Amino acid sequence: MKATPQVLKGMRDFLPSRMILRHYVIDELRRVFERFGFEPLQTPAIEYAETLEGKFGEEADKLIYRFEDRGGREVGLRYDLTVPLARVVSMYPEMVKPFKRYQIAPVWRAERPQKGRYREFYQCDVDVVGSTSMIADAEVVIIAYQALRQLGFRGFLILLNNRKILQGVALKLDLDEEQAARVWRIIDKWDKIGPEGVRSELSDAGIPSEKVEQLYRLFESGATSVDTLESLKNRLGDVPIALEGIRELEQIVRYLDLSEVPAAFVRVDPHMVRGLDYYTGPIFEVVVEQPRIGSICGGGRYDRLVGALGPAQFPAVGISIGLDRLIDVIDELGMAPADVRDTVTQVLVTVFEPSLLGASLGVAASLRAAGINTEVYLEPDKLAHQLRYASRKNVPVVVIMGPDEVSRGEVVVRNMVTGRQDQIERGALLSAIENELETAVTTVVARP
Amino acid sequence: MKATPQVLKGMRDFLPSRMILRHYVIDELRRVFERFGFEPLQTPAIEYAETLEGKFGEEADKLIYRFEDRGGREVGLRYDLTVPLARVVSMYPEMVKPFKRYQIAPVWRAERPQKGRYREFYQCDVDVVGSTSMIADAEVVIIAYQALRQLGFRGFLILLNNRKILQGVALKLDLDEEQAARVWRIIDKWDKIGPEGVRSELSDAGIPSEKVEQLYRLFESGATSVDTLESLKNRLGDVPIALEGIRELEQIVRYLDLSEVPAAFVRVDPHMVRGLDYYTGPIFEVVVEQPRIGSICGGGRYDRLVGALGPAQFPAVGISIGLDRLIDVIDELGMAPADVRDTVTQVLVTVFEPSLLGASLGVAASLRAAGINTEVYLEPDKLAHQLRYASRKNVPVVVIMGPDEVSRGEVVVRNMVTGRQDQIERGALLSAIENELETAVTTVVARP
Repeated sequence: MKATPQVLKGMRDFLPSRMILRHYVIDELRRVFERFGFEPLQTPAIEYAETLEGKFGEEADKLIYRFEDRGGREVGLRYDLTVPLARVVSMYPEMVKPFKRYQIAPVWRAERPQKGRYREFYQCDVDVVGSTSMIADAEVVIIAYQALRQLGFRGFLILLNNRKILQGVALKLDLDEEQAARVWRIIDKWDKIGPEGVRSELSDAGIPSEKVEQLYRLFESGATSVDTLESLKNRLGDVPIALEGIRELEQIVRYLDLSEVPAAFVRVDPHMVRGLDYYTGPIFEVVVEQPRIGSICGGGRYDRLVGALGPAQFPAVGISIGLDRLIDVIDELGMAPADVRDTVTQVLVTVFEPSLLGASLGVAASLRAAGINTEVYLEPDKLAHQLRYASRKNVPVVVIMGPDEVSRGEVVVRNMVTGRQDQIERGALLSAIENELETAVTTVVARP
Repeated sequence: MKATPQVLKGMRDFLPSRMILRHYVIDELRRVFERFGFEPLQTPAIEYAETLEGKFGEEADKLIYRFEDRGGREVGLRYDLTVPLARVVSMYPEMVKPFKRYQIAPVWRAERPQKGRYREFYQCDVDVVGSTSMIADAEVVIIAYQALRQLGFRGFLILLNNRKILQGVALKLDLDEEQAARVWRIIDKWDKIGPEGVRSELSDAGIPSEKVEQLYRLFESGATSVDTLESLKNRLGDVPIALEGIRELEQIVRYLDLSEVPAAFVRVDPHMVRGLDYYTGPIFEVVVEQPRIGSICGGGRYDRLVGALGPAQFPAVGISIGLDRLIDVIDELGMAPADVRDTVTQVLVTVFEPSLLGASLGVAASLRAAGINTEVYLEPDKLAHQLRYASRKNVPVVVIMGPDEVSRGEVVVRNMVTGRQDQIERGALLSAIENELETAVTTVVARP
């Protein structure tokens, strides 16, 4: 007897009940993205190693599943969806710009995963390539807003900042490049260690205390996004790059407002840095506060990345939604609609004995034709076994067809959620089942 | 300036118009599979090399993208969906049986691809694990039938045979194992080289001519599946294993009939062998004759594979649909419904000048809320440029909002397919657009 084959550490199987939930979330996201005219794109899992290494350089070596293919080519598995997008934009110059695309696909990271992270996980990215318009920036943010609303989230905040404002602050404070980088790395921890923690780390890092105080004054927020921007303008308006960044955020805030994103969901947050170096303008983060799950989307404008990877420069902006985290939370909190079940099957038709199989198959065919997901039990068996199968799989409705019922042109419909069982005329079956499915949905059942 | 990054040979990008078609086909297939209560499953791309090599042994070495991961483990990319299914069934013994699942996912083959084949391609598999019932065999065949019908195919044939009948023939003809294998390899070419080609190859292979004649008599088909089975029974009924195989096919043919699969679509074909060694019972193939594209689905019963790969034996049966080929054909013949377009966008809302952006964003938001996929042009620009963008992307409807229209509470709706343009009151916009989308769909436009 062989040993049981295992799945690799950091990799996951998605068994049916989990996949059904994933399909629900992914289908909803797709619908929102397409509602805004974003088009689907798909790229191969394997790329030339040279293409993959363009973005991260030396760090890439740790990150990438890299190997030699049978033709001796150095290749690797993609570790994100931005590099393939940049490659696609470079390879097909005839593509109409602005190019708006979404891609929902697995990526792979070779390094040992942190707790709660995986070596194979899904990214869900929405980007606009080929436009410098702030409408594009606003649009990817609105999409994240709509997606979260659509999935049932109510308490979350969209944080906005701009790399240009951070640059302006560095100029204002007369920080050299190396100092500035150190400062942003520390500021980035604001949410984790608080203003006092940041203050002490800045001081440890050798930033003079008068500069720290000046920084804290610059970062004072107002009651609303508009107030904060006004206050930033008063304090940094004389630094051209900062002013440019502030004006960009003003536009984004205005477009969000015009697109009916409530102001209470939007906050300009001058402390937000976002680690990735390739952002060049506005940066975004969406933090879910209710339930308290933290950052779930991040993104920003990256006008120089496409050019760094390929022959032509294109401005771009995008946002990435943390799909796996989102699905975990929706699962834990039971946020999916009640008709997203453990099984796709809505009705099981029982089989009493071989001679009645025809009747069972006929009923199943008519239910399927009416759009109801229907299984036929695969062999004549004791009714108790067939009901047990339905119950273990959480199938909500069972149609029982014994010889008496068949001879009378009737069937028995059993609601497995409520336990109720009715004798129904064959002609009334479809509407009876639709009723029972409705009842099964509105009857609260805890997910196991 | 950098060189343009390339995609690897045998790998493909699916740009939006192609992806939209793929989504259409995959969504239809999913719907059919779930209609029969088959559940989605997803497994990681990377598996232990040992797991992957179980099925093909030495051949696997050529087939698999194999490499060492950072922890020194020998791993590889999956080359099919059957091995991961067998692993899943072995790893989760608590899973309710019969386990009916579908999986639509990419697989990878390291060898140099034949013409029209790829190193990364999609498999689309439907399997039942844990049942020996012929209803399971019939069900996967019915699913393939329904899937093809649903996608618009009308002229195709479901070919049925049984490995047990082939075994019976070998016994009847007194062929030893090695001879039998040689015979089946040659018979498998029946469709390619015809009965005379097969006859001459059999003779070249040293099969005595009286055995060849006997074989041809055994394989004579009747006018219908039932006739062919009757004739097989008359000739092979004294060989127990053959009789068992014939009785299994009789059951499948009966279940297909009870499930309203027209008899004209079904043919028992004693010449059908199917290469893969792991089949143990009924085997199936679906051949599309109109258009003449050949075999598009294949499958069969494999009762010993799961046990060969893991610790426990489970009977299983499945069918695999050639997704890439299917999509190619649907594309070439324009078989997709007219609302499957080159773009997901249904409406482009133009932006006349910055001060009118609010009006454009408002209209876009209301169209989206009504379920219409709507883009706003990303910056104020000449109308001609905005119309050109819509036309290059094949967006069917454009809403034009100039200052005169906005001040009068009107908009202009332009149908990009018919060229017709109307002045519409703002309140009547939604129904006007629904009309135009309808018109755009019914106006025949050739796919480029």
